Amino acid sequence: MKEEEIVARFFSHLGGEGAAAPGDDCALLSVSEGERLVVSMDTSVVGRHFPADTPVPDIGWRCLAVALSDLAACGARADFCLLSLTIPQAEEKWLQGFATGFGECALNCGVSLVGGDLVRGELSISVQVGGWVAQQDFLSRSGGAVGDGVYVTGTLGAAARGRELMQSGGAEMAENADCLRAFLRPLPRLEAGERLTGLASACIDISDGLAADLSRLCRASGLGAQLQSKDIPVCPGGTKTAAMDRALHGGDDYQLCFTVSPQQAGRLSERLGAEGKDWWQVGVLTKAAGLRLDGEPLRATGWEHFS
Amino acid sequence: MKEEEIVARFFSHLGGEGAAAPGDDCALLSVSEGERLVVSMDTSVVGRHFPADTPVPDIGWRCLAVALSDLAACGARADFCLLSLTIPQAEEKWLQGFATGFGECALNCGVSLVGGDLVRGELSISVQVGGWVAQQDFLSRSGGAVGDGVYVTGTLGAAARGRELMQSGGAEMAENADCLRAFLRPLPRLEAGERLTGLASACIDISDGLAADLSRLCRASGLGAQLQSKDIPVCPGGTKTAAMDRALHGGDDYQLCFTVSPQQAGRLSERLGAEGKDWWQVGVLTKAAGLRLDGEPLRATGWEHFS
Repeated sequence: MKEEEIVARFFSHLGGEGAAAPGDDCALLSVSEGERLVVSMDTSVVGRHFPADTPVPDIGWRCLAVALSDLAACGARADFCLLSLTIPQAEEKWLQGFATGFGECALNCGVSLVGGDLVRGELSISVQVGGWVAQQDFLSRSGGAVGDGVYVTGTLGAAARGRELMQSGGAEMAENADCLRAFLRPLPRLEAGERLTGLASACIDISDGLAADLSRLCRASGLGAQLQSKDIPVCPGGTKTAAMDRALHGGDDYQLCFTVSPQQAGRLSERLGAEGKDWWQVGVLTKAAGLRLDGEPLRATGWEHFS
Repeated sequence: MKEEEIVARFFSHLGGEGAAAPGDDCALLSVSEGERLVVSMDTSVVGRHFPADTPVPDIGWRCLAVALSDLAACGARADFCLLSLTIPQAEEKWLQGFATGFGECALNCGVSLVGGDLVRGELSISVQVGGWVAQQDFLSRSGGAVGDGVYVTGTLGAAARGRELMQSGGAEMAENADCLRAFLRPLPRLEAGERLTGLASACIDISDGLAADLSRLCRASGLGAQLQSKDIPVCPGGTKTAAMDRALHGGDDYQLCFTVSPQQAGRLSERLGAEGKDWWQVGVLTKAAGLRLDGEPLRATGWEHFS
């Protein structure tokens, strides 16, 4: 198959208005007047970001979802994506599976695939995402203030548990479908991010684990944080210590970690919902740098490519 | 070195206003009111898009230049780029060389590096570029009409000659510095693209060779083209047949191929300049599909990854 055939057959139905036609050089996109453009880019490499035996549709979903998670952290409305797909060979079944998963995530998150590139090589997937946000609504990492509450969405450590189960295999996998799903099909918290605009003082997505990502937020804000272990929504599995370790350092959750001033905290329920609540205060920002858990220093390590 | 250190040390000086700080999730970019956003993405893989022994600064220049060439073909004003860099290891000298070449191209073309990603794996470089164009100025491939003149910028086949010389090595390389430069440091024709807005009826950049890319323009316009070999600006080297073959099928030139109606052709000199002229009419669009060279059918083959 030629590159243009592959694009036409597997990917062109994912495009929206202004999307590049198969083989076109560029996509032409309408601008949201009065808003700013927010862009980000993520690359997923086989054997590094996902195991080689990951179901192909899940690879497609996941590589888009992790890129969109960056937009969620900024409070942006996701709009479009570009896909650069490097594959060893143009195998029809693989392409069909990949496009299905990628398309499901795009549909779920309301983004159009507007362009990209297709080349031959070791499996590697780069996704660039774009969205829109009003200047004053942009959520950064650096706006936290001393005394602001530290919050997270969802349950932490579920994806790391799912990743472990994939590696060990066996019956436990079937019994922990939620954890597997958290790893293979993370759901970027775009709606939560948009609802936090004008309310959260700082925000980051949890890609490398709560400790590493909260540490980034703290450094950007020039502060530290104090966490209470009893308040952290830990995904169970194995020993309590193992579960807490995954929640703090496991990564791949793609939940949001955000801060809200005590004056604003009362508005969280109306914004994020109180029924079936899936957000929690886990600590508070402190003047002293570094992280502490139950008063003890907490290492800020997580996933790191080049350490 | 950690990912954030690498970004801070080698790449953060290439950012403009709104660029993501090292480790930031997203870049926040001002929108040009009244214009549309134009985006494109290109991946360069070692051993496929450039030889493994390509000087590292040239790899950096080239991977950005080839992506920007797509914006040139659309008549867009280039503004920003994102870089996803997959490298086997974080080697300081390599990173310094790469960032130098990439930065030289960015400076030369007036684009800011606003974000990206850094991962470990087989050397592969994805670049996403963005720019702006007024809706009515967007140059597409599909606007050609019967009788429009077919034009190209620059000299064709120079880059393919340079690529050949790199492979064969020896004294000829030094004697053909221009051809080497055409391959290693292609200059995206952004200024020419912008000057063609409102004048050219269709435009494409020549990445896979004149025959393949003009063929795409013709198919998008529902037409064919007739070329005159004597009018094609061929880069000399070896036999005349070899030189013409490189000009038609060699690729990597990143010049523009565009069409202009006979009524508008008189305005080309004022737009593109008449002194030191480097643009040429090479043929005409025809109702009959397919390409013909001096009356004979011309194969439309060029660079193709998955044929």
